[in-house]
Amino acid sequence: MEVVVPFSPTNPKTRLADVLTTAERREFAGVMLEDVLDALSRTRGVPTPSVLSTASLADDVDVDVDVTVDERALTSAVNDVLASRTEPVAVVMADLALATPTALRGLFASDADVVLAPGRRVGTNALVARHPAFRVDYHGASFVDHREAAAQVGATLSVVDSHRLATDVDEPGDLAEVLAHGAGASADWLRDHGFALAERADGSVHAVRHDE
Amino acid sequence: MEVVVPFSPTNPKTRLADVLTTAERREFAGVMLEDVLDALSRTRGVPTPSVLSTASLADDVDVDVDVTVDERALTSAVNDVLASRTEPVAVVMADLALATPTALRGLFASDADVVLAPGRRVGTNALVARHPAFRVDYHGASFVDHREAAAQVGATLSVVDSHRLATDVDEPGDLAEVLAHGAGASADWLRDHGFALAERADGSVHAVRHDE
Repeated sequence: MEVVVPFSPTNPKTRLADVLTTAERREFAGVMLEDVLDALSRTRGVPTPSVLSTASLADDVDVDVDVTVDERALTSAVNDVLASRTEPVAVVMADLALATPTALRGLFASDADVVLAPGRRVGTNALVARHPAFRVDYHGASFVDHREAAAQVGATLSVVDSHRLATDVDEPGDLAEVLAHGAGASADWLRDHGFALAERADGSVHAVRHDE
Repeated sequence: MEVVVPFSPTNPKTRLADVLTTAERREFAGVMLEDVLDALSRTRGVPTPSVLSTASLADDVDVDVDVTVDERALTSAVNDVLASRTEPVAVVMADLALATPTALRGLFASDADVVLAPGRRVGTNALVARHPAFRVDYHGASFVDHREAAAQVGATLSVVDSHRLATDVDEPGDLAEVLAHGAGASADWLRDHGFALAERADGSVHAVRHDE
């Protein structure tokens, strides 16, 4: 099996622009990538992943795995990997700040032709592809599309039910999940940058930034 | 073990008021309750649940389990149950439209003193309490509070990692999860009332209501 972590370092996490500067978003995206690679490295039986990046990584991103640069969009870059390999391929998103070895084991434990870990907002946060004809399309409701794509090529399907793997960090609301459930560097980074859980008058809970 | 499903039939799901009328919200909340009770009834080894309701159920809510009416707020009503029982108590929210027996098994499989299934927005969507001193507080960041409460009484803790159990249906954004992952009456109800997944120009996915 080959494990690929796609990453886009140039202008990442634009939907966090209201709460993080451009430089902070770059740094936070790098820290989340480090968390994902760390969780994968501690998952028994999973080979060393590689990063599939749209650009060279900045010097402050501390990864010691292979980095392949492919400037194309996510779907094209991943499908090129799928088309060129005969072994199974796992694709794990770089912003799964809550990923743990236990959660990731659920992804790798199934031997279905296609294993999908849905993300919130009907995305696909991680997958394993063992069927040679399966291809990805990350645009839009990718979980539904991938489920249909698996059926169309006659692949057996398994779906991983994990809140940790379903939580990709895209929006300010996702930061509360990281603060509540994160045990890695991403949660520490948010706390170091002044974020804490806070309750509004209506009882709802948010990650609020205080003066550092 | 006793299994309790709290329910509030009077003016439920106010945060869905932009997409559902008051009557529709009442009906949809009832359908979600039916889905949760159905999933529990199909979970092996789990006793028949009862509903802990703030008011009598409407005639169109089709449940064949015991209903206890307690007009007090959720926290008080649940703590009264916890204080009055010597056996373990499970509390499962009535709006877990994605709950399945497989997901619920994760809640009941652990024998920890306190088992928590976190909800999005740092809530607590389901729990099992076996420690006599454990009490709930559903206001605000209840998952974090319950984790601390378990530690304070010296209870062992287990946390269930399930996207299905983490998805309580409170906001319009949650309806997309039901349409994508739901296999019960709630997903059918949404489709019957004109909801479908749709993609906006930015690629994001939403439950959009079409003419019925």
